[in-house]
Amino acid sequence: VKVSDIGEFGLIQVLADIIGKNKNPKDATWQKLLIGIGDDAAVWENEASFQLATTDCIIQDIHFDINTSTWDEIGWKAIAVNLSDIAAMGGVPSYALVSLALPGEIEVGSVSSLYRGMMEISNQFGVAIAGGNVSSANTIMISITVLGILKNKDMLTRSGAKVGDKIAITGYTGLSAAGLQMLKHNLQFDVEASDIFKRAHLKPVPRINEGQTILQCGVKSAIDISDGLIADLSHICDSSNTGARINLDLLPIHPLIRTNFKEDFLQMALTGGEDYELLFTAPDYIIKNVKKALDCPVTTIGEIVDDLTQKVTLVDISGNIVPLSYAGWEHFKLTG
Amino acid sequence: VKVSDIGEFGLIQVLADIIGKNKNPKDATWQKLLIGIGDDAAVWENEASFQLATTDCIIQDIHFDINTSTWDEIGWKAIAVNLSDIAAMGGVPSYALVSLALPGEIEVGSVSSLYRGMMEISNQFGVAIAGGNVSSANTIMISITVLGILKNKDMLTRSGAKVGDKIAITGYTGLSAAGLQMLKHNLQFDVEASDIFKRAHLKPVPRINEGQTILQCGVKSAIDISDGLIADLSHICDSSNTGARINLDLLPIHPLIRTNFKEDFLQMALTGGEDYELLFTAPDYIIKNVKKALDCPVTTIGEIVDDLTQKVTLVDISGNIVPLSYAGWEHFKLTG
Repeated sequence: VKVSDIGEFGLIQVLADIIGKNKNPKDATWQKLLIGIGDDAAVWENEASFQLATTDCIIQDIHFDINTSTWDEIGWKAIAVNLSDIAAMGGVPSYALVSLALPGEIEVGSVSSLYRGMMEISNQFGVAIAGGNVSSANTIMISITVLGILKNKDMLTRSGAKVGDKIAITGYTGLSAAGLQMLKHNLQFDVEASDIFKRAHLKPVPRINEGQTILQCGVKSAIDISDGLIADLSHICDSSNTGARINLDLLPIHPLIRTNFKEDFLQMALTGGEDYELLFTAPDYIIKNVKKALDCPVTTIGEIVDDLTQKVTLVDISGNIVPLSYAGWEHFKLTG
Repeated sequence: VKVSDIGEFGLIQVLADIIGKNKNPKDATWQKLLIGIGDDAAVWENEASFQLATTDCIIQDIHFDINTSTWDEIGWKAIAVNLSDIAAMGGVPSYALVSLALPGEIEVGSVSSLYRGMMEISNQFGVAIAGGNVSSANTIMISITVLGILKNKDMLTRSGAKVGDKIAITGYTGLSAAGLQMLKHNLQFDVEASDIFKRAHLKPVPRINEGQTILQCGVKSAIDISDGLIADLSHICDSSNTGARINLDLLPIHPLIRTNFKEDFLQMALTGGEDYELLFTAPDYIIKNVKKALDCPVTTIGEIVDDLTQKVTLVDISGNIVPLSYAGWEHFKLTG
């Protein structure tokens, strides 16, 4: 059955049913939702708080490939990239709205799988899908808005970095780039490597709990690594009016990337993007506390400096500057 | 200068500047916005309330044509269609997030005009553009989420219609369809008609204040006419589990449509869609109060009935049933 066979209103009914059957009604977000899908707008009960809102869009053949991803992986990732932005503020995600555009010849079953993927990750993080809309289009576009809250005025921003702060990062960088290369060029690796690369690229897990813990530890400045380590660190430098120095030998590069991408592992770690790890800066003693508080790897990779001649400077183990010949992902052009 | 010349981050800076220069900083929404464009998520201070959220997407060649609309008209309408959903709940709009996808060869000046159009209507209704994202794509897609609030638990829903309610509508229906036909087929009319048709289609004014007044008058049930009068009234019937009877002779059809579209005016009024008027149902005495309270035309066009054999029944001045041979706009298929 194709989407064009059941039409817009038929599709909305199918999607509302999937959400209804898969939701966790015990989540506080669902309990506070008064009007979900099926009216002009969603309505929920809101306590006084600091509201977070972010929106991100993924588009066929630009952000995903239906030949190398399953539909539920696409749905997972569409929500994940937005949750990662909430994580980077130290927030608690609450509601999502999904704006879906697609050609009528797509199978209803595919769209159902897309929504099951969205529900899987939403349930994992207590997010309720409160509404959305569907529209016909020549290409598949999934635009999602996620709302969240901060309990008080403290938050993680891009502008909070101070000269002397250490720069740290959760997890590994470059794994998502490895997954993209593997899928795009049909590269063959052993099962363990394949699985890690693929999951990093197709089912990234946003650092929601880690973001909140980092904030509680007293960190003021963070960003998620969606554009690539250098590009995202540059955003912090821009907003904080600082420079940054990264020690290449400290980068948390997964051993499976080093061994399987001997030529490219450094570029992948620095510019690959889509890792959805958190990069944050703080005085050393706070970073030490973060390391104690978190279960995931946390690695200090450099420091914030007052040298503004180049936003991000790379140095090797001897302190020598390594020329920066590539930057990171930017829509409309690939710099470097 | 094309978007590809300045890249994603350059474009974001241009758009942030336009918003900064054009915003009304005295609006309460801007004053409560702590973090706008330029971080991972927007942050604003929220009082306890009932939160409204709606999202809608407009796509090149499906919802708009860059040959017959100016960029600022496209921007206006992209926000307007979302505000109309907030109006249909009786809410007060507050913040908007804009997810924009477009080809790199578009002129930066065009995107700037798009945002000036968004700012024009946002300022008119006290809405702050709090964030968004831009992405490259083969076609232009503008997905917008608008948030709003209800002061208390009272709201206008699709499910609030009761048998015996009168059905009323603000303004006129069919004017937007007239504008679409005029622009699509380059039809020639006198200046007054051209102007009214074109404005109705390209710069619809959402019934924000009217929605709030309708709610205050005690109305429980409303919808905005985006899909067409019959289709939207059918949504109310579906949600309220009722039927509806419309008297064709009572329809508020603008005299300029009657004279300029002698063959089609009835179909345009019933199924044209995109009028963004409010259709609502309530006991007769409440509708009388609404008519007194509103400055715009309010017309009673029929009543809610318990006959469910056909959702919407059309009758003529003598009470004879007129066969319903067409419905309204639905994505993926055009019914009727």
